[in-house]
Amino acid sequence: MIDERIEALRARMAEIGVDAYLVPTDDFHGSEYVGEYFKCRQFITGFTGSAGTAVITRDMAGLWTDGRYFIQAAEQIAGSQVQLFKMGEPGVPTIHEFLKQNLGEGACLGFDGRTVSDGEAGELSELMEEKHGSIRGDLDLVGDIWTDRPALPSEQVFELDEQWTGESRAVRIERVRAFMKERGADIFLLTSLDDIAWMLNIRGGDIHCCPVVLSYLAMSQNDVMLFTNEKAYPDEVKRALLADGVHLKTYDLIYAYASGIPSWYKVLLCKRKVNSLLTSLIPEGVTVLDEENPTTIFKAVKTPREVENERTAHIKDGVALTKFIYWLKKNVGKIPMTEISAGEKLYALRSEQEHFMGNSFDAIISYGPHAAINHYSATPETDIPIEAKGLLLADTGGHYLEGTTDVTRTIVMGPVSDEQKQCFTAVLRGTLNLAAAKFRYGATGLNLDYLARGPLWEMGKDFNHGTGHGVGYFLNVHEGPNSFHWKKTATRRADTVFEEGMITSDEPGYYVEGAYGIRHENLLVCVKDEESEFGQFMRFEHLTMAPFDLDAVVPEQMTGRERALLNAYHQDVYEKIAPHLEEEERLWLREATRAI
Amino acid sequence: MIDERIEALRARMAEIGVDAYLVPTDDFHGSEYVGEYFKCRQFITGFTGSAGTAVITRDMAGLWTDGRYFIQAAEQIAGSQVQLFKMGEPGVPTIHEFLKQNLGEGACLGFDGRTVSDGEAGELSELMEEKHGSIRGDLDLVGDIWTDRPALPSEQVFELDEQWTGESRAVRIERVRAFMKERGADIFLLTSLDDIAWMLNIRGGDIHCCPVVLSYLAMSQNDVMLFTNEKAYPDEVKRALLADGVHLKTYDLIYAYASGIPSWYKVLLCKRKVNSLLTSLIPEGVTVLDEENPTTIFKAVKTPREVENERTAHIKDGVALTKFIYWLKKNVGKIPMTEISAGEKLYALRSEQEHFMGNSFDAIISYGPHAAINHYSATPETDIPIEAKGLLLADTGGHYLEGTTDVTRTIVMGPVSDEQKQCFTAVLRGTLNLAAAKFRYGATGLNLDYLARGPLWEMGKDFNHGTGHGVGYFLNVHEGPNSFHWKKTATRRADTVFEEGMITSDEPGYYVEGAYGIRHENLLVCVKDEESEFGQFMRFEHLTMAPFDLDAVVPEQMTGRERALLNAYHQDVYEKIAPHLEEEERLWLREATRAI
Repeated sequence: MIDERIEALRARMAEIGVDAYLVPTDDFHGSEYVGEYFKCRQFITGFTGSAGTAVITRDMAGLWTDGRYFIQAAEQIAGSQVQLFKMGEPGVPTIHEFLKQNLGEGACLGFDGRTVSDGEAGELSELMEEKHGSIRGDLDLVGDIWTDRPALPSEQVFELDEQWTGESRAVRIERVRAFMKERGADIFLLTSLDDIAWMLNIRGGDIHCCPVVLSYLAMSQNDVMLFTNEKAYPDEVKRALLADGVHLKTYDLIYAYASGIPSWYKVLLCKRKVNSLLTSLIPEGVTVLDEENPTTIFKAVKTPREVENERTAHIKDGVALTKFIYWLKKNVGKIPMTEISAGEKLYALRSEQEHFMGNSFDAIISYGPHAAINHYSATPETDIPIEAKGLLLADTGGHYLEGTTDVTRTIVMGPVSDEQKQCFTAVLRGTLNLAAAKFRYGATGLNLDYLARGPLWEMGKDFNHGTGHGVGYFLNVHEGPNSFHWKKTATRRADTVFEEGMITSDEPGYYVEGAYGIRHENLLVCVKDEESEFGQFMRFEHLTMAPFDLDAVVPEQMTGRERALLNAYHQDVYEKIAPHLEEEERLWLREATRAI
Repeated sequence: MIDERIEALRARMAEIGVDAYLVPTDDFHGSEYVGEYFKCRQFITGFTGSAGTAVITRDMAGLWTDGRYFIQAAEQIAGSQVQLFKMGEPGVPTIHEFLKQNLGEGACLGFDGRTVSDGEAGELSELMEEKHGSIRGDLDLVGDIWTDRPALPSEQVFELDEQWTGESRAVRIERVRAFMKERGADIFLLTSLDDIAWMLNIRGGDIHCCPVVLSYLAMSQNDVMLFTNEKAYPDEVKRALLADGVHLKTYDLIYAYASGIPSWYKVLLCKRKVNSLLTSLIPEGVTVLDEENPTTIFKAVKTPREVENERTAHIKDGVALTKFIYWLKKNVGKIPMTEISAGEKLYALRSEQEHFMGNSFDAIISYGPHAAINHYSATPETDIPIEAKGLLLADTGGHYLEGTTDVTRTIVMGPVSDEQKQCFTAVLRGTLNLAAAKFRYGATGLNLDYLARGPLWEMGKDFNHGTGHGVGYFLNVHEGPNSFHWKKTATRRADTVFEEGMITSDEPGYYVEGAYGIRHENLLVCVKDEESEFGQFMRFEHLTMAPFDLDAVVPEQMTGRERALLNAYHQDVYEKIAPHLEEEERLWLREATRAI
């Protein structure tokens, strides 16, 4: 079937005069996860992973993906003509290298410019210029042959009022307008779905686990145009938006709008986030002010109301998680449980909480060796029973009207080795020390990351992922720009200053391939500490409220300060969670949060 | 007298047609310290500080300097027409703002382009273009009127052979040539004096405390041209240089050389470090490859021989410093001593060490409140007696054939307050923790700085200077690019990766204005630690060998690990230093390095 699709695509390519066609994973908004409508790469290759790019030429069909997906991709493309290009492996060309080597003079490279960023399109354009060839970014050739393509999502839109956000739509729009004035921008083009939802205080369900609304936004000092599917908006939401000067337009019309921008205008947009078709349509002469969307910074700094709500959300979430841990430890080895069934149990417990709105991402419940697999999420094919031994890693989260949670606990299901305890304790020391940082205003994740990694680095160990990311308010669980990282990269500056109200995850880990994985994750909110003659000092407070499993903690491995930090946290957990538990759960939690 | 000079300068300005003349502090090489010949700004304003810029217009003479020098500058310009512009104070214009506001349409701004960096000259040029005016960087108007100007320095040059550097001149030249090839550069222009001395394995004494040789260098794959004062070179040095293809040319001829570079050449140079007159003379058409001088990185990574020699230098230096501390503590209150006389005593003790070549910077021996003054160095006017109470800060260093030292000890001269002990201990914890860092290869000063500041930040305290800088091998005591800082700035990236063989100072401090100052400084050499599946781990080793004063250490304020770090260091100090002491000194050191 895949081969038939590829041949149909090639027929379209021949009609149009395209020699190679590129199919990325992105939707039109650079979203981290994409809806069914956007899964062109999956349609044309059969590969379902969350990262990868297909390139179809007249005589070759290739799929590029990274180490997380080598095995899965190989299995899913088996039997088709698709070839796997293992990114980063020695001797494997990058897509750019492949195109350079395999396309002839004067060739034409096609892609859907809505799924390619402006920067990437620029590089492809340069590459093809070297061959005296061309690019065409105004194509959707997979769409042309995809007869039973799912419809664009259009989940019902609802408002999130000031009770939850602490800031009205009108105020948020005004803040953005003030920023535009400062920059001298006539128009602000915004296509990041979570930024739009934040500014307009609306939510939807157009992306799996992300309560966003499919839309583009263009605003001036006078009006806000929201290009979207009007049918998804109940009348009262429409009226409320209109009252704040927000006019609904047809989703696709953003492209016509962009091409009609007067040539003497200044347009503010973030090239890294706006798709290349949209930027390519902006008329010559228009001044593009390319910088981070102001909404991204505004959104990262939660309002006092949002922070207070998040505390409530985290208590509810902690109650569900505490009940889950208790249930696991009580029942393991006695009743059947698997990674998937445990995930369902946790979902059911979260669902009992008021204002629960769904998972904030697909639960990662990974047992034993599965916990060492990056981004593992159990499927019916991989699901395994959880037994009364070893470690279970549970990285899960929920959306509530009061905010979004993201928490990881590594749970002792039975006997564990001394090595496991030692590493469990080292990772926990990192989590606690980072959370306890007190620092001068102006410090970034680059300055603080060592606190989380130090205990592992001292052992010659490490973990190959970032230490923490920003988290949205009942929005995307991964949100920029705040983060904890020790290294800058081309795409990750990691030098955002921590502001009061930013929420960031603190999640060091340790993984042994084929054996086990450990991660401890709490969300931290940045708050002001003292102001002295040296300036403003900042610190973090734990939002997440759930016990760390003392069954794998080696107290002697911790400093006195670290033990005090753990004990104080556990006391806080007990005080906040216990009132919401059944008596036997409460007794268990008292023991689970005992001072060590 | 200053006013007469200013009037003479104005007369020259009128002759030439210059409306404003700018006089920076720099020499022609961007050196940190400058020789007498180059002190034009001092000549025209009377101000002797190490930082500041004068601007003379037809009706105004201004001096811009920073907070360190407000008092000194005001005193030194008193009675002249020079006005003080306190940089950074509210309402005080920057030089650029001043020029913008005060120069008329079509005005001409003059300066000696040899004393202005390319970047600064570019900004001045833009500023004047806005006024439809012009700049002239080919002037030395202060030189024109300075009749008794000191001669250019020309201290005798000597070779530093492989016994000291571990790498021959020929090899160093070849390494640079390989780098040039990689970049496709036909010529490499190098004007940083310490880089030239490093590459050619020569030393001199043309800058106070810096054993460098006044020179410019231009090299190709075939030859090396050293523009310098030939008279400073003994015949055997000339012969040795010639044998390695290094030809001596007249110092000033670099400018004629630059203007004769063929237009199809590619020239490698570091614009930040080469002066603007030189770059302005490079013919149009020449491709300038602007990047950090390769010599700067090569020089920062010491050879194994250099590292071994540095260990020797630091033992000698530690012997002198230990004897000094013993002498201070034994004699204070009994014999007269002042900041200056103590400095002389320490110099005498260093002079007893074989291969001592002089101070690596003007000794900072600052007693009581003086220790809180940044960059304080006692003069006959400021010198005060040292008494049997409080803290004495001694930040000093020496040059040896075996390397350069830079060490700070804060010495208890008698009773000190609990607050002083508490801060002394906090700073010491920072020094020890940073030195004990173990980290993945790839980490930078931004990642590690928190280790030094954490104990102070936890107390709401801080110090307003960097935590550490690179140090040369019998060269400049301040050397890039390695450093410890928590903040990046426009001029300081602070993101140099620590390489095996880099030497960096570790010097947190704490200062209370008008009361006291504390700083503990050791030099650290970066070495390889284990290589694990996660990559190469790195750590530091102490080079500096001298006791920290236990009389102000509060053991209860330290973790067990910190006490163990201090005890291990002190044991090392005792073992290395004791054999070189007199018996009574040795007994004292045994007590001074006791385990706590």
